[in-house]
Formats: sequence, structure tokens, C-alpha cells
Amino acid sequence: MTKSPHIVIVGGSAAGPAAAVHAKKMNPHARVNLIEAGEHIAYSACSAPYYVGGVISDFEKLIFYSPEIFSATFGCEVKTRHRAIRLNPHRRKLIVQNDAGEIEIPYDEIILACGARAAIPDPAWLSSKNVFTMKALLDAKSIRTHMETSRPTRATIVGGGFVGMEMTEALAHHGLDITVVSRAELPMPGLENAAQKIVLDELQKNGIKFISNMNFKPAENEMTILATGFKPNTDWLDGSKIRTGKFGGILTDARMRTNLEHVYACGAITEIKNLVTNKYVYLPLATIANQMGRVAGANASGSFMEFGGIVPCSVVKIFGLEVVSVGVSSREAENNALSAEVEVFSGFTRGKLFSQSKAIFIALIYEPKSHRILGANILGEEGAVLRGNLLAAAIRRGETLSDLAEMDFAYTPYLSAFKEPLVQAARRAMKK
Amino acid sequence: MTKSPHIVIVGGSAAGPAAAVHAKKMNPHARVNLIEAGEHIAYSACSAPYYVGGVISDFEKLIFYSPEIFSATFGCEVKTRHRAIRLNPHRRKLIVQNDAGEIEIPYDEIILACGARAAIPDPAWLSSKNVFTMKALLDAKSIRTHMETSRPTRATIVGGGFVGMEMTEALAHHGLDITVVSRAELPMPGLENAAQKIVLDELQKNGIKFISNMNFKPAENEMTILATGFKPNTDWLDGSKIRTGKFGGILTDARMRTNLEHVYACGAITEIKNLVTNKYVYLPLATIANQMGRVAGANASGSFMEFGGIVPCSVVKIFGLEVVSVGVSSREAENNALSAEVEVFSGFTRGKLFSQSKAIFIALIYEPKSHRILGANILGEEGAVLRGNLLAAAIRRGETLSDLAEMDFAYTPYLSAFKEPLVQAARRAMKK
Repeated sequence: MTKSPHIVIVGGSAAGPAAAVHAKKMNPHARVNLIEAGEHIAYSACSAPYYVGGVISDFEKLIFYSPEIFSATFGCEVKTRHRAIRLNPHRRKLIVQNDAGEIEIPYDEIILACGARAAIPDPAWLSSKNVFTMKALLDAKSIRTHMETSRPTRATIVGGGFVGMEMTEALAHHGLDITVVSRAELPMPGLENAAQKIVLDELQKNGIKFISNMNFKPAENEMTILATGFKPNTDWLDGSKIRTGKFGGILTDARMRTNLEHVYACGAITEIKNLVTNKYVYLPLATIANQMGRVAGANASGSFMEFGGIVPCSVVKIFGLEVVSVGVSSREAENNALSAEVEVFSGFTRGKLFSQSKAIFIALIYEPKSHRILGANILGEEGAVLRGNLLAAAIRRGETLSDLAEMDFAYTPYLSAFKEPLVQAARRAMKK
Repeated sequence: MTKSPHIVIVGGSAAGPAAAVHAKKMNPHARVNLIEAGEHIAYSACSAPYYVGGVISDFEKLIFYSPEIFSATFGCEVKTRHRAIRLNPHRRKLIVQNDAGEIEIPYDEIILACGARAAIPDPAWLSSKNVFTMKALLDAKSIRTHMETSRPTRATIVGGGFVGMEMTEALAHHGLDITVVSRAELPMPGLENAAQKIVLDELQKNGIKFISNMNFKPAENEMTILATGFKPNTDWLDGSKIRTGKFGGILTDARMRTNLEHVYACGAITEIKNLVTNKYVYLPLATIANQMGRVAGANASGSFMEFGGIVPCSVVKIFGLEVVSVGVSSREAENNALSAEVEVFSGFTRGKLFSQSKAIFIALIYEPKSHRILGANILGEEGAVLRGNLLAAAIRRGETLSDLAEMDFAYTPYLSAFKEPLVQAARRAMKK
């Protein structure tokens, strides 16, 4: 590799800018060129629902760096409104389109970080001006503008997953009458049944209707938000022979190298190895994209860095609840030939004499023979996120119920429970 | 061992009742006899400062079970107001004193769980009616009664450790003008210097004076609370040849067996192995006492159970702060021939666009060569306890900075930070 490689990075948001910054950090001689189809490169996509909800008042607050400031701060070139349309890996050329036409950009190393787009049940639905997706930053702007100008009184959210729940809460902030429609029987289909029922309760307590309907079609005059998942932006790579997985995401090794020489990929365009099952999964989360970006940037610039996979660990705020999912569900476990038991436990976060104490629900998923912990759902008004993180670390280490039952934990009754709920859940499971 | 051993347990509070309950659970044929010098056996000693402070209004709420109800619920005999005064391990007899005189109690197995008492700089100080210790449950009652009847306007707390801080906050609740006096330069002497300064700030912000004074003596007419540590209640065992450690606590193996046959010990009368240094330490905490009690009870009743030691993990609430200490301090590490570096990091608990986000301080203590994590101080308005628990688990597994830097964590900006502060602290330390 040359000492000052020309590294082209395709895509802003979480992975691309992390790759750019890290490539420059590891190799200040590298020439780094960040290319983005839209206008914005470095922003908080995860905060966008809160802009829709009005918790964040100002759209500009979502933007971390303008292209100009990003470029000046990190010493990268930035080209916005340049859409990648073809890759020629043999000649090491990227073909992009801008307002003026097509340009060929040669590269030494290229990092594909062009993310995902909304997966739509039927593209024809988007022809209605009342139907919105929620993926790009500008989607948030469109939705909020629509609410401010058209003043809808009701809305339908299609999809009961993470984004569906975030958009439900965001629109509820504006006092809309909201119905969530899903193909599944209950919201949050990745959770265990008992956890899903708690989510349903929380929705209903907050006046949200939930309907299971396989044959939904948007009503002509009603605001509808499609939160029906994402798919990786790989269409433009057809013909490049880049290797993809069963979810359509690009497959990489731990250094974020694809099967094509000098081509790296990171973020929501890729699949990632789930360390619980050792299988590739599609999990387009900003934190993971950021980590992958760092690794891709480091390797493309001549360093060595690895990212071997993840224990999935995600959270969504649903009104008063932190809803955390970590590892695999019992269903995923069984689909991967792991047998799974679920211990369902309800406890409290603090000493019982203290009114600050909150209920916490834990569904602990484990392998019945080995007692290895496979996953968990944790739901509560407080303390679910950090307990999820703790379990993710335990799962990464292959720990068992008895490891969890023996954990050390800090106790003072105003702040924590005399018997840590995770310990109680593990002990109860061990008795079976 | 006989199938229905007579197990005598000496001492209520955290360890003894846990031993009694667990002995009966593991062997319903066992005859279990719980003996306590005072009146109460099962109560929340850790909540007592909150009774003093008035957060808990009613003294009776501190009591979990009366002796009668405990006895009826768990099938144990209970004798209160029976003070153990001598042990004859050769004849397997315990000599106790009650109002009527001395009694000999024979046993098959005995569990010593008689806890600790306040360590007093000068016993003569206790002759003043304005000077209080804070150890037994009745101490809390005396202090609160004193405040209600004598209506003091100021108080001195002697000792800047955990109990000193809890009592400071408790008395501040009543509007007293409070001075904390300590032999150390700063409060919370077990913490790293930078963390101690944060505690000092928090005290001062809340109008508390802190004075370092090696030659303190209580003023005649001022309310004074001695929070100068604890020592194990082993004096009555002089002559029994029971083996004790350098802090005066009884030494046990992982099954809670002492060097004397058929004699177990657990709770604040014992020392416990610190898994970071592999040395015995004295850490009289209720949670650890409870775990030890379970293990002692199980083994005394004929089962097999082990408790191999702890990663110290403790917390105190100091006004608005959760103050957590986990593992060893840099000083303790160095005293145990471990070299230690401290990475001091200040971050935030949530997304930066969210006003709910709170500052969090981390002092990460690690071995510079191996990068093994040895300990941490974590201070903040939220999320310190659970991060401490997570680190305790990491330390127990012998994890390094890079393990921590690679941890999986759940992100949504309203509830957590895009870069988890523990990860940031670890990454910063790795750069050195």
C-alpha cells in the first residue's frame, strides 16, 4: 500500500464520517474523500424522532458538522449531492452522479458506507402526500412540516418495531390520535411474549391503539408513517460481484474487507456477525455503524484493527419505559438450533421502603443444559439500559446463570435493591 | 453428619437470618436456633440513616420480621436478649447470658454471625449524652429521639467515610449546621483524589463544612456522631483459638468454615477475600453478609456451597450524587504490589441534545502493562451504581481496557450516550 493512499468513502451519517475521521487519524498522509448523495453528512439520525416530537425544537441541532466544517476540522474532502451509481473494482473507479452529470473517481481504497433505505410494503403507497417513511434526516423534516401545516388530528403508524414505537411517541407528543398497525399479534416482535404484553399495556395506557392486520392499506386522507424496516443500499452495486448475505447486506471480515480487493464496507449497508449464534444478522444501528466505520477507516489507511462482531444490544424509549433487548430471543435461538428457556421475573430497582423504587421486568433467555445466557429483555422506568449493557458483556463472555447469580453489586437502599433483580432472575432460573 | 443437625447461629441482622433461612431450606430436618444479644433480628440496617433523616418516618418499617414471625415463617427457634459470651469448640457448646444468668447451648454445627461494633477513637467520649455511634439499629432511634427532644441546631460528624456521609445527609435533612471532621485531607478516603474533590464540592454545595483534624475532641455541648469505622465482634472468642486476620476478622474458607471444627463464620465478623488482590479485606456490607450467610447455612446443614470472594463494589448517596467505588483504589493496588494508573474521565449519561443528560465522572484504575482493570470510582447524578456493577463483573473476569472499549451497549439518545462513558474512558486510557 502507498503511504498516502487516496481513500474514497461513500456515504455520510454514522459509518462514513467515522471511517473518514479514523482514516485521517491513523494515517495523516492519507487523502480522504467523503461522498454523499444528500446534503448532510454528520448528524444524529437517532435524535430525529425527537425533532418530530418537538423535544428538539430546531432542525439545525440535529446536524453535528456542516460539510465545510467537517472538512476543515478533519482534513477530508467532502462532496455532497454526489450519488454513487457504479463501482468498477477492477479499475478501482467509482462513478458518481451530480447535478452536472457523471464523474469517475479513482481510488486506492474505497469504503462503502451508503447505509440503508426504508423497506416499503408497496412503493405505490408513497404517491400519497399523506404517507411518509422515516429513514433519512429529511423525512423527519417532512413529517414535522406536514404536522405544522396540515394539522392532522390522527395518524397511523405502520410497523410495531423500534422506529414504529419512536414515531408513535413522537406523534403522541403533538396530541394526535394514533393507531399502530402491525402484521404481528403484538408490538415489538423481537421481544418475548410477556415483554410484548408490557409494551402493549404501556401503549394503551397512553391512549395508543394497536391493531394486528395482515392486509393493511393506507387510508387516502390519513397521515401514515411507514416504519416497516430498512434494507441495505446495495442496488447500485449490482454487477460488481460484491458478496452479500441473506439479508442483502454486504459481508465483510473483521477488518471490514469485502470479497473485492481494496473495497471495504461498514454500517447499515453490511451484515454483522452475531456472537451468540455466530451467524450474520442485519442490525442497522448507529453505534455499531460508528464502530465499523472506525475499523474500516483504520484498515483502509494502512493500520490493523478488527471488529469481530456484536452481542446485539438495543433500546427504545416507549413513553415511560426503557425497553431493552440484548442477545437473542428464544425464537432466534431456536431458529439457530440452540434450545432456549425463558425465566420471567418482576422485581424492583431500589429498596422497598423507598418510593423512588420502580418496577423492573426481566425475561432471561438461557440454554437449559449449559445454563449459558443467550439473551434478555429488560423493561422498566429506570435501570433497564445499563442492566442490558451488563448482560451484553456477560453474554459476550459466554457466562452462565451461576456467574450472574454471583455478581458483585453496589447496594444502598435509596439507589439500589438489596437483591439485584438480575441476580434474583438468575437464581430463580437455576432452581428449575 | 447427622441428618437432622442442631445448628446454632449467633447473631441477627444480615448474615445470621440468611444462614438460618438457607440452612432450613437446604435441610428441612435441621434444627436451627438463632440467638441474638439485642431485640431485633431481621431488619434493614442500611436504611437506618434514612430513618434518622426522616425519609422513613416510622421505626417499625425498618423491621422485616419480628422474632416470632421469623420463627413461624422459617421454622427456626429464635432467642433474643441472649448474648454469646463463650465458645467451647471441643465440647461443642456455646455459653450465652440472658436476664436469668448463663446457659450452655450444645450444638452440632455453629455459625458465628455476630457482626461488628463501632470502632471508637476514645471510649471516654461516649460518656457524653451528646455523643452517638451509628451501628446498631437502636443507635438510629437514639439519634432521632435526641433530635426531636433536644432540637440541636448543629452537629459534628466524625469520619468522612460511607457512614459519615450518610449521617451528614440525614442530619442535613433536619436543617442542622453540620461539620464533618476527618483525619484525612478530604472526604471518602478510599476514593481517588479527583473523586474526593467532587465529593467535597458536593458537600460544600449543600452547606456542609469539612475539616481535616488529627486532634479532634468532641465539644461538651454539641451533638457529635462517631462514624469512625467498625470492628468485628470477636472479643468474646478470646481463648477459642479461632483464626483471625490482620483486620481482626475471622478467616474462613470458601464454605465459610473457620479453623475450628463445626464452627462456621459469616458476615461482618469475618474478613473476605478480595479477588483483585487475592488478599483478605474487611468489608462489613449487608449484601456480602447475606451471601456469606446463605453459604454458611447451606454447608452447616449438610449441603455444599461456596463463596470464593468478592470484587468490592459499594455505593453511598451523597446529596445529589451516586458515589461508587469498585475493585481497588490505586493506593490499595500499590500496597499490594500491583502498579496502577488512573484515567480520569468526565462525560455525560445521555445524548447531548437532551436536557435530562447528567455529568458522570469516572476514575478508571488499571495496570499499565497488562491493561487489566483493577478498579474504578464512578460519581454522578444517575447511572453510577449500574456502571459500577458492570465494572465489578469485568474486573471479576480479569478484563482489560480493550475488553471494556469493545463492549456492546444500548443507545437511544433520550436514555443513553452515543459513546458510552465507560468506553470513552477505556479508549482514552489505551492511548497512553
